[in-house]
Amino acid sequence: MRVYLAGPEVFLPDAVEIGRRKVEICARSGLTGLFPLDLDGPAGLATSATIYAACLAAMREADAIVANLTPFRGVGADPGTTFELGFMAALGRLVFGYTNEPALHSERVREEHGPLRQEGEGLFASDGYAVENFELFDNLMLAEALRANSPGVFKPSLPVADPKRDLSTFERCVAHAADALRAL
Amino acid sequence: MRVYLAGPEVFLPDAVEIGRRKVEICARSGLTGLFPLDLDGPAGLATSATIYAACLAAMREADAIVANLTPFRGVGADPGTTFELGFMAALGRLVFGYTNEPALHSERVREEHGPLRQEGEGLFASDGYAVENFELFDNLMLAEALRANSPGVFKPSLPVADPKRDLSTFERCVAHAADALRAL
Repeated sequence: MRVYLAGPEVFLPDAVEIGRRKVEICARSGLTGLFPLDLDGPAGLATSATIYAACLAAMREADAIVANLTPFRGVGADPGTTFELGFMAALGRLVFGYTNEPALHSERVREEHGPLRQEGEGLFASDGYAVENFELFDNLMLAEALRANSPGVFKPSLPVADPKRDLSTFERCVAHAADALRAL
Repeated sequence: MRVYLAGPEVFLPDAVEIGRRKVEICARSGLTGLFPLDLDGPAGLATSATIYAACLAAMREADAIVANLTPFRGVGADPGTTFELGFMAALGRLVFGYTNEPALHSERVREEHGPLRQEGEGLFASDGYAVENFELFDNLMLAEALRANSPGVFKPSLPVADPKRDLSTFERCVAHAADALRAL
């Protein structure tokens, strides 16, 4: 069974090594991990179009996605990763996700934008946008998509030392994905 | 032809009115706009699960998506909206998108995180993540997906006064979507 490994760690300087560790963790559960940086061919020749095509082809041949939804450059998950989560959900593949950030979405908005204020039926942040009041880790589309094949997003109960690189929650998520894929 | 209208404007206090204007702009091009807030039934009874199901059903019955990819609570687009963009791309529907932010992704990262530094082959921001060096408006997965049915993302050439609510670029995007849908 093949698992597409989505996440913003592709943007880290040690991305290749992180990918290697992720693929190794998958292998221990009997899964073949497909890491985007392993798909592109010679890095110097890659264009945004060839990377896009390679990622789409890998997703189409994968049985599942495990998405790293740790917040990226803002309150929410990386938009490229969530695009891929939606893509796999629409293809009917199994979708799994984790975050290395234990705080709820509303807590992170408060941290970034200060106290929320009630206005009508909504709870608004200082940026003028409401906060979804569902006690979820991120936008409800992501949280609900993940409930199809798992108890929902996997996350640590306490803050981790290096949220960009920690793989312990990824490991729990992959173990669950392997069980779910075996049960297909 | 039905068009799913995705975007973070659903979180604004005047979301219903913005949705009404978006649907009206669609109608002028002969399109039926499906705005998420019009789908949910009685707002007080909505749960994250019922909203998710309603949005998925609306996407499945739509011929296209027009996604508002204006940056939301950070450098990138709203993760819920990009989930929907990926979902529609995988279903093989026509995907269109716009942003009310004229700056490139790399310019916004610089604005938020200071100067970038070259390290090996990558260009890194102070947050430790590289910046995709493709002169795109956001993550390449979004930019490339949009190139399937249009010249790419629609955006203003100059900053707009109210990027959360301005609909002039949306209007251009819808006009293009209508032409593309008529040509199907």
